Amino acid sequence: MLNFNYYMPTKIVCGRGCVVREGTQMQALGTHALIVTGKSSAKNGALDDVLTALGNNGQRATVFDRVTPNPTVACVREGVALLVSAGADFIVAVGGGSPMDAAKAIATLCVQERSDEEIFAGGYEAKALPMAHVPTTAGTGSEVTPYAILTNDFKETKTSITSPAMFPRIAFLDGRYMKDLPTMSAVNTAMDAFSHAMEGMLSRNATPMSDMLAKESLRILYPLLPGTKGETTDDERDALLYASMLAGMTIAQSGTTAVHGMGYCLTYFHNVDHGRANGLLLGETLRLCREKGVPALEEILSACGDTLEGVCATLDDLLGVREDLPAAELREYARRSAQNKNIKKSAYEPTEAELERIFMASCHTSR
Amino acid sequence: MLNFNYYMPTKIVCGRGCVVREGTQMQALGTHALIVTGKSSAKNGALDDVLTALGNNGQRATVFDRVTPNPTVACVREGVALLVSAGADFIVAVGGGSPMDAAKAIATLCVQERSDEEIFAGGYEAKALPMAHVPTTAGTGSEVTPYAILTNDFKETKTSITSPAMFPRIAFLDGRYMKDLPTMSAVNTAMDAFSHAMEGMLSRNATPMSDMLAKESLRILYPLLPGTKGETTDDERDALLYASMLAGMTIAQSGTTAVHGMGYCLTYFHNVDHGRANGLLLGETLRLCREKGVPALEEILSACGDTLEGVCATLDDLLGVREDLPAAELREYARRSAQNKNIKKSAYEPTEAELERIFMASCHTSR
Repeated sequence: MLNFNYYMPTKIVCGRGCVVREGTQMQALGTHALIVTGKSSAKNGALDDVLTALGNNGQRATVFDRVTPNPTVACVREGVALLVSAGADFIVAVGGGSPMDAAKAIATLCVQERSDEEIFAGGYEAKALPMAHVPTTAGTGSEVTPYAILTNDFKETKTSITSPAMFPRIAFLDGRYMKDLPTMSAVNTAMDAFSHAMEGMLSRNATPMSDMLAKESLRILYPLLPGTKGETTDDERDALLYASMLAGMTIAQSGTTAVHGMGYCLTYFHNVDHGRANGLLLGETLRLCREKGVPALEEILSACGDTLEGVCATLDDLLGVREDLPAAELREYARRSAQNKNIKKSAYEPTEAELERIFMASCHTSR
Repeated sequence: MLNFNYYMPTKIVCGRGCVVREGTQMQALGTHALIVTGKSSAKNGALDDVLTALGNNGQRATVFDRVTPNPTVACVREGVALLVSAGADFIVAVGGGSPMDAAKAIATLCVQERSDEEIFAGGYEAKALPMAHVPTTAGTGSEVTPYAILTNDFKETKTSITSPAMFPRIAFLDGRYMKDLPTMSAVNTAMDAFSHAMEGMLSRNATPMSDMLAKESLRILYPLLPGTKGETTDDERDALLYASMLAGMTIAQSGTTAVHGMGYCLTYFHNVDHGRANGLLLGETLRLCREKGVPALEEILSACGDTLEGVCATLDDLLGVREDLPAAELREYARRSAQNKNIKKSAYEPTEAELERIFMASCHTSR
């Protein structure tokens, strides 16, 4: 029996040069943009294109380029303060997951006040400033999700905040901005997208729509993964960005699961890149799914066109030398992860012992 | 190179009993609903469920149940007048394509005045009353498109009006309302959905997103087509409604093509049911696509899992005895269709002679 909801109101505008060519689509968003970006995100041509498009529209712009990876509440507060002092009435996010997630939090918190303690308490109203997002990596899919993932120092992890108003109004996809992406970023973000598509299918909240999107994403993305370690073509970058967006549309419906729930520990305590953290944990998670007979696993492998060990080998090749963390620490991460809400969304919910096994197999090489 | 736009902001709520169970989602739409429906659409339980849900929300309701197949401008005017006199501020459409399309036109024309002559002139602003749609047939997909197709007596055809605000806010999908659908309606609407998915892929405006949606629709729909001639199960009706919605999402991106462009003549001049008109013309159109080497045809057949002649035989079986219309008349329809904007959207644009051949092969059995 079919029983699901689906909602993804973001307008997707995809194509080389689309920000300037279709920039008039931002006219309805407001009169003065706060551009939320990071120091390096700004150097790939995307910021220039956004400024050109806003200029063509006669819209003002104030640039906030101080977003760092895994954005903090303090960073979001700084953005809100700049937005208010500049008098901006809409937001354009330019960059990877961190600027996009910070932008969503800024767009929400500037119209819904919260103390630091309450930021992660949920219950946000569907109210936020309108946004356009310009992703410059193919990984997060944040341009088509209603989630902002922030560093949560209270719980020593990363936590999402969400409301339906956090879907951007417009997402501009132009693979050209990924041309000079460092190889390590290309590899890590691709693993993030891959994890989104897989976790979407391994979620209790998977729906026929999210499965359709995930399979299409995997069909496009999986064959491109090995190539992210080297030079990619324009067409490959376009395809990676498209597949990452499909994976974002997937988790906009299903949410993420155990891999993300565990990965946040590696990022919070060891500063492991978010996509890499997912990539590290993915293989052993899939092996556990095979043991537990999770039906979606076979559909995932069929979409990839590979075997379980083939997928694991592809990931191993992308990861190179794995982190080697002490067993006691990994045990502690298993204990912490077991409390994470993403774990409970897994079609097969791993026990704490199984989480420990995944951590050990993934990040303890000195056995 | 990927180059496309995608937009489909309707929230889809799918599941048995969803109108009442998730009826609170209509709370944000307004205080007083005009329910737009037809005499028979109202008898499958959907109208009762909508009235219950609105009652639970403390919302008022006025019923306009005078929508007939292939709604006219006069019918739309009548709906607008009732809406205004009742003081309704949102619309709930209940029924097949006719009530849904009439509802969209009412929602638009009550906030954008047009003379009868200007109704089909295009250029509508993105402004309409908010709507919820409850489809009770699996064919039109109108619940997820921004189009309203009305009878156009000026041009003696059916013509669409559109604006982004004509996407319903919510679509409630519950296959139970199709339980007592007459067999002929079940067959004809299924052929309409089938045509939408196929035409989406045969459109010049096909995109990677619309192709993904169309293929998923065809994979689900095609094996179910023969069964629409007999008793269907609950699960089959759910699947038909879902596939029809996917086909609607397809044409929301790509629009329709030659088959619809030609079919409107059969409906306007001979009152042939809309879905049947498409079904009649589809087989020979596909044969022309094969001759012209249209690449999407092979993808369509692969999604159906059948050969071209297998698909044609399936359609023949659904259609039964074909209409037999005079050659001179069909020649005239070819001439008229050649001017239709949908024809020009076909990946292979048929010449007038080819349109005549399709009409003759499809509706001239006395050769």
